[in-house]
Amino acid sequence: MKYAHIQQEAYEANMQLPKLGLVLFTFGNVSAADRELGVFAIKPSGVPYEELSPEKMVIVDFDGNTVEGSLRPSSDTKTHAVLYKHWQHIGGIVHTHSTYATAWAQALRDIPIFGTTHADHNTVDIPCAAPMHDDMIKGDYEYETGFQIMNCFKERGLTYEEVEMVLVGSHAPFTWGKTAAKAVYNSAVLESVAHMAYLTESIKADALRLKDSLVKKHYERKHGPDSYYGQQ
Amino acid sequence: MKYAHIQQEAYEANMQLPKLGLVLFTFGNVSAADRELGVFAIKPSGVPYEELSPEKMVIVDFDGNTVEGSLRPSSDTKTHAVLYKHWQHIGGIVHTHSTYATAWAQALRDIPIFGTTHADHNTVDIPCAAPMHDDMIKGDYEYETGFQIMNCFKERGLTYEEVEMVLVGSHAPFTWGKTAAKAVYNSAVLESVAHMAYLTESIKADALRLKDSLVKKHYERKHGPDSYYGQQ
Amino acid sequence: MKYAHIQQEAYEANMQLPKLGLVLFTFGNVSAADRELGVFAIKPSGVPYEELSPEKMVIVDFDGNTVEGSLRPSSDTKTHAVLYKHWQHIGGIVHTHSTYATAWAQALRDIPIFGTTHADHNTVDIPCAAPMHDDMIKGDYEYETGFQIMNCFKERGLTYEEVEMVLVGSHAPFTWGKTAAKAVYNSAVLESVAHMAYLTESIKADALRLKDSLVKKHYERKHGPDSYYGQQ
Amino acid sequence: MKYAHIQQEAYEANMQLPKLGLVLFTFGNVSAADRELGVFAIKPSGVPYEELSPEKMVIVDFDGNTVEGSLRPSSDTKTHAVLYKHWQHIGGIVHTHSTYATAWAQALRDIPIFGTTHADHNTVDIPCAAPMHDDMIKGDYEYETGFQIMNCFKERGLTYEEVEMVLVGSHAPFTWGKTAAKAVYNSAVLESVAHMAYLTESIKADALRLKDSLVKKHYERKHGPDSYYGQQ
Repeated sequence: MKYAHIQQEAYEANMQLPKLGLVLFTFGNVSAADRELGVFAIKPSGVPYEELSPEKMVIVDFDGNTVEGSLRPSSDTKTHAVLYKHWQHIGGIVHTHSTYATAWAQALRDIPIFGTTHADHNTVDIPCAAPMHDDMIKGDYEYETGFQIMNCFKERGLTYEEVEMVLVGSHAPFTWGKTAAKAVYNSAVLESVAHMAYLTESIKADALRLKDSLVKKHYERKHGPDSYYGQQ
Repeated sequence: MKYAHIQQEAYEANMQLPKLGLVLFTFGNVSAADRELGVFAIKPSGVPYEELSPEKMVIVDFDGNTVEGSLRPSSDTKTHAVLYKHWQHIGGIVHTHSTYATAWAQALRDIPIFGTTHADHNTVDIPCAAPMHDDMIKGDYEYETGFQIMNCFKERGLTYEEVEMVLVGSHAPFTWGKTAAKAVYNSAVLESVAHMAYLTESIKADALRLKDSLVKKHYERKHGPDSYYGQQ
Repeated sequence: MKYAHIQQEAYEANMQLPKLGLVLFTFGNVSAADRELGVFAIKPSGVPYEELSPEKMVIVDFDGNTVEGSLRPSSDTKTHAVLYKHWQHIGGIVHTHSTYATAWAQALRDIPIFGTTHADHNTVDIPCAAPMHDDMIKGDYEYETGFQIMNCFKERGLTYEEVEMVLVGSHAPFTWGKTAAKAVYNSAVLESVAHMAYLTESIKADALRLKDSLVKKHYERKHGPDSYYGQQ
Repeated sequence: MKYAHIQQEAYEANMQLPKLGLVLFTFGNVSAADRELGVFAIKPSGVPYEELSPEKMVIVDFDGNTVEGSLRPSSDTKTHAVLYKHWQHIGGIVHTHSTYATAWAQALRDIPIFGTTHADHNTVDIPCAAPMHDDMIKGDYEYETGFQIMNCFKERGLTYEEVEMVLVGSHAPFTWGKTAAKAVYNSAVLESVAHMAYLTESIKADALRLKDSLVKKHYERKHGPDSYYGQQ
């Protein structure tokens, strides 16, 4: 019973994915962590969304070991575990194969920052991590996926607190946040930004990136010390 | 209680945005003005659509000061205020980040008038206002956004009575009308026209603009002195 | 009461347009004819679909005169009238501004026959009638639109019995059929074929037309003397 | 009564097609086979989905002869029969004209393997079978369609157990599986993969195929002897 709160949180967040049009069948998963207990609740592998319930969420520790639950956790569980272990202020993680974000990942391209919708959430292009080397793929693949994401952020000087989304090259997006609900929100924002960026380049092949002053203004009015978006 | 009618009008108009597929989460806002009272009702900032109610609409005057309401108004409130103050026959304003219109805004392109769907509503390309200069961005940004829109119309010799929509370059669309409902209608029309124009250029790279005789005919049959569209 | 059957038919067919995603707001209309009575029932102009009822359908004769009904008929009524008058086996007509078909019309291009979905319904490219000359536009526009469609068919040697759809260049599609329901069906098929043709050229710029043997086979298995599609 | 189980299976699988957005009107069909009885249940031809019921599913043997049922079976029945006869471990077959998969078929192109969503289901490009020679088209067309599919697999050294989907050039996709439900699942996966591949090439014209190590990893973690996707 001591995990019921994160099971409920993970369940509700998982159920948002089909409602937001971010998953086909079971092609996605959300987890919700309890930092004090050192565990997270995650969707069981391959179970249709309509058959999910809070009790079916599997409890896993930050080394990827199942702590409670009779079902097998998501096949991407180790990626979640690695990110929770090393990025200590994350409370929720989402993985989807949403259509537009996945297309950018398959094209091995960062998503250029073209407008204020993007800048409301990020000040930089949304990074696309390079595909892993073959020895990492043949090794502990999902574990290495977590490192591939973290290495991409290190190389580019990004922090996970500011940029809460990434494309894994050839694969698909991961997003995170302080809660599972925020991570789901980020997945929907990413899909929308990916769609708009695709259209922008179609409408103007050599579209220019958003200028710095607008990037800064939009990001800060929502996230800066003097932000005035939202309540209080 | 004296503002209940515009709160109701603004509430109903805001609730149309998700139904028409024009917003993701809270990325949009509608206001409704009472010209005699010199105020408008606008969506509170960052409140999910499913949590809105008429009473939550914030009452603001045409200088952008909150007159009534405990919630913070939309972060775009000053843009609404400026437009109400200077364009004296507007009764409603809408801002969205709808996908296709925003893509044209990000491409910094006017939407060319390619067909009668466009000409039923406008006789000219839908204007894309240039992004602001940096000092305006760093200044009173949302206030300046209103002036940027009005300056764009002045430079091009457009009137807000005839053209009830604009793209703000790098950002997203604004629309307006005699009522909030009409402004919402215009946002949906703009998104549809933006979608069709994108497809038209994809199907024929050098597509030609609609010829003048058709522009005039379609606009006048709906809006001219001898219009015969709609009832009476 | 003697027109109730075609009012009902026209009402039901009109209500299919928003369900099939073929119209935004009131941008479409369907009519249903009774050949013996020499009249058709058509949607009133500019009335939202949710406010329609069978009694509101306006009764018009084949010269475009209103025979019964207190509402003004669709602004496109004369186009319907002309087509009913000259194409004597039509029982229903539909006009929409559906997204993909309208984009081809705006590009002034016929829709090439690329596959069997197209050939199941037509053996030729879907024709795009040229925009009218200016004197026709300035004249009795909707009346002339009907002649423009018929002239396009004459010039190309097409018959309205075999090809039940057309794009009016710079404008949008019209479809027809033995019943209003069949005409609506044709509008949905046209939109789907227009979407697929757009994608086909995007995937392969120099995509080839369907070869004759397949055109013939698919058309005949559904419409030929030895057809074996559907029941009996 | 002895066919009720496959009628139920075929009925339920057919009803999934409109829910998954894979068909317009009656442009698709699903069958479900009973290998011991040597028959399959298939959708009747041209009957709208909302009028279907399990009893209306027609029972046909593997030579294409109707065994039970008063309605005419799908016009594509012989293609199903041929595939069941020669590919002995198939329990369900689906044919649709889903938008993106059909566009690739009309472009006569295989769908390149660009990412892990594809590799989760196939290790190769999704094959597009060449259109048939004219004598085959003029002969027993639907019967020959089955052979065209099988010949494509033979020429390319593919097995129907590993690759459960194909595009028939100029026409549309077929998918299959151990059950009708699995075949429907494959149709939805194919449509999603076709959509993503289209976008990938639009985002990067010279997008590279997924590298072998990732193809293998993703396919094997779901289908290999040591697979760890899904439950037990």
